[in-house]
Amino acid sequence: MPKRYFDQELKRLNEKLLEMARLAEEAISRAVRALVERNAKLAEQVIQADETINFLEIEIDELCLKLLALQQPLAVDLRFIASALKINNDLERIGDQAVNIAERSLDLLKQPLLKPLIDIPRMAALAQKMVKDSLDAFVNQDTKLARRVCERDDEVDDLNDQIFRELLTYMMQDPKTIARAVDLILVGRHLERIADLATNICEDVVYLVDGKTIKHHVEERSDS
Amino acid sequence: MPKRYFDQELKRLNEKLLEMARLAEEAISRAVRALVERNAKLAEQVIQADETINFLEIEIDELCLKLLALQQPLAVDLRFIASALKINNDLERIGDQAVNIAERSLDLLKQPLLKPLIDIPRMAALAQKMVKDSLDAFVNQDTKLARRVCERDDEVDDLNDQIFRELLTYMMQDPKTIARAVDLILVGRHLERIADLATNICEDVVYLVDGKTIKHHVEERSDS
Repeated sequence: MPKRYFDQELKRLNEKLLEMARLAEEAISRAVRALVERNAKLAEQVIQADETINFLEIEIDELCLKLLALQQPLAVDLRFIASALKINNDLERIGDQAVNIAERSLDLLKQPLLKPLIDIPRMAALAQKMVKDSLDAFVNQDTKLARRVCERDDEVDDLNDQIFRELLTYMMQDPKTIARAVDLILVGRHLERIADLATNICEDVVYLVDGKTIKHHVEERSDS
Repeated sequence: MPKRYFDQELKRLNEKLLEMARLAEEAISRAVRALVERNAKLAEQVIQADETINFLEIEIDELCLKLLALQQPLAVDLRFIASALKINNDLERIGDQAVNIAERSLDLLKQPLLKPLIDIPRMAALAQKMVKDSLDAFVNQDTKLARRVCERDDEVDDLNDQIFRELLTYMMQDPKTIARAVDLILVGRHLERIADLATNICEDVVYLVDGKTIKHHVEERSDS
């Protein structure tokens, strides 16, 4: 298997992962727009488009296996392909979370608006940017960007806590809001989960490039 | 690299994955016992033990990479190792979900008991069994067992819906229960997520052994 062919296939793997990330970002954006604009059609599009993401996941897995089967990939390429397998999995799950949001949105659209949504779209924009940056960090092996993405995870968590507390207050004051508030709490959770998955990807990038794990804050501990 | 050494290392990989699954099961069991028995110490044990799971994840990843780097693993071994990488990731996430449950439990222990817990321990037992069976299915390449685990996912989902509806009723009737009910709803979600992760593992087992994907119900569609 000539080196040039291997490199071409690696490049194709990168492109497919970027495409997968693009689809995942689009799914997040549409699912939240469905909620904000009260547009059921957008939510249904997210649910339908998930099939494309699922097929692409299988395609990328197969491409990784093909690359692994090539004669003696270098250690650095092995690590890269193993990371690609994981990241592929993470992106597919981000797509699933977007579907969950779309389903919550469809449920919420059947009921009157609880409150104007401000923090949820802000959280969604943050999470979406994290997904984009995590894949850019992977493709460009950019650990600085990867570390910055990991830091932003706290911002998303804080926003989620804020949303959660606000919605609890709504429910306490008016039990009629409970069903809708719980739906919105779950939307917040799904967005938080998307940010976690993007953080996972970035932790894998740092490990891939620097050989250091920042996963589970092992790094911090070993520094102390 | 002699074949026998490779086989030994594959066996070691299996054993480590089983150990990881055992730790994950124990974490689920303890986290829910913490909740049911109102025992904060158990919850704290789950949070502490997660470090062991996290280190084991890294160890298993490294073992997979080592096996991939050996000269020309057979296609069937490649697929097996690639699946091991994914399953390792899934098990670590199951551990994280157990930590989430432990955190919710600690929060709930600060407040009076909302209601005797019946469905949540039942759901936890189901989810825990799914994790155990999914790893047995992997190690024994048992697709029958894997398919049975996937079917049980619906049972967990139904229980979760039931818990959710019951807690909504509590909140509507008495706003003082809202904070606790939301905590319990989240515990239900985490258990549902654990069952999903075990289902993922089983879908990978079927794909690994039969080369057929039952992920995303592609199989159903192509049959129709």
